[in-house]
Amino acid sequence: MTDDLPPLLLGRLNHVGIACPSIDDTIAMYARLFGATVSTPPFDLPAQGVRVAFIDVANSQLELIEPLGPDSPIHGFLKKNPAGGQHHVCFEVADIIAARDAMRARGATVLGSGEPRIGAHGVPIIFVHPRDTGGVLIELMATPDHY
Amino acid sequence: MTDDLPPLLLGRLNHVGIACPSIDDTIAMYARLFGATVSTPPFDLPAQGVRVAFIDVANSQLELIEPLGPDSPIHGFLKKNPAGGQHHVCFEVADIIAARDAMRARGATVLGSGEPRIGAHGVPIIFVHPRDTGGVLIELMATPDHY
Repeated sequence: MTDDLPPLLLGRLNHVGIACPSIDDTIAMYARLFGATVSTPPFDLPAQGVRVAFIDVANSQLELIEPLGPDSPIHGFLKKNPAGGQHHVCFEVADIIAARDAMRARGATVLGSGEPRIGAHGVPIIFVHPRDTGGVLIELMATPDHY
Repeated sequence: MTDDLPPLLLGRLNHVGIACPSIDDTIAMYARLFGATVSTPPFDLPAQGVRVAFIDVANSQLELIEPLGPDSPIHGFLKKNPAGGQHHVCFEVADIIAARDAMRARGATVLGSGEPRIGAHGVPIIFVHPRDTGGVLIELMATPDHY
């Protein structure tokens, strides 16, 4: 590695985001196949255009997301992947504004206006454009005070 | 949830598998953007048709996989996703044979012969067909003795 490697920005892998045509069907599948139950039942997050539920595993979470409304950002993904699939990976960061500024300073594109929005965990989040991150949509979220 | 919910089969989210056209470029990107370095440098896993490297985060790992050889199972994914992307999610299970049998008993398809193979962590693994799991390719691996 080079001498100018920046300090480690990524904290915990908070969750894997999974897009579903039906969040209820996906919850039923995880229960039936894996005995896994939701820790947070489905709720609407209109600001993000998604309906969301969480399944906890020992060290992380699965975030199930279903389109909410005609302008949901998930429609495009489901058009390409009608059965659903892995949509994003979310890492915690100590300082969301510093992380946003670091992404830009290092040449990556932050989606939207770049102003952090409040995500499903109630803390500010940003998304980094997948063209800058090897095709993986990466969410960065402020480390929650509690889970 | 129903009374006949099976016991929880999923353990830790061991890693997120990320397919890359160039594992070296992806490693360089994680270093440059996020200050993240490889914990296991790239090595060939001919039995799986992949070249593999790991990046550790606080609670989990990213498994970077690049096609190895003309028959690599990753070629199809990269044809559909030329920039790379999230390829699979891997959960630890206490007993890989019991997990394999449970998948079949519950109507899910285990890829290949169904005989567990030795994966990049040196422990037996299976893959469950994404048509049974909401479009997400799920790897199940025997819980490693150590990391």
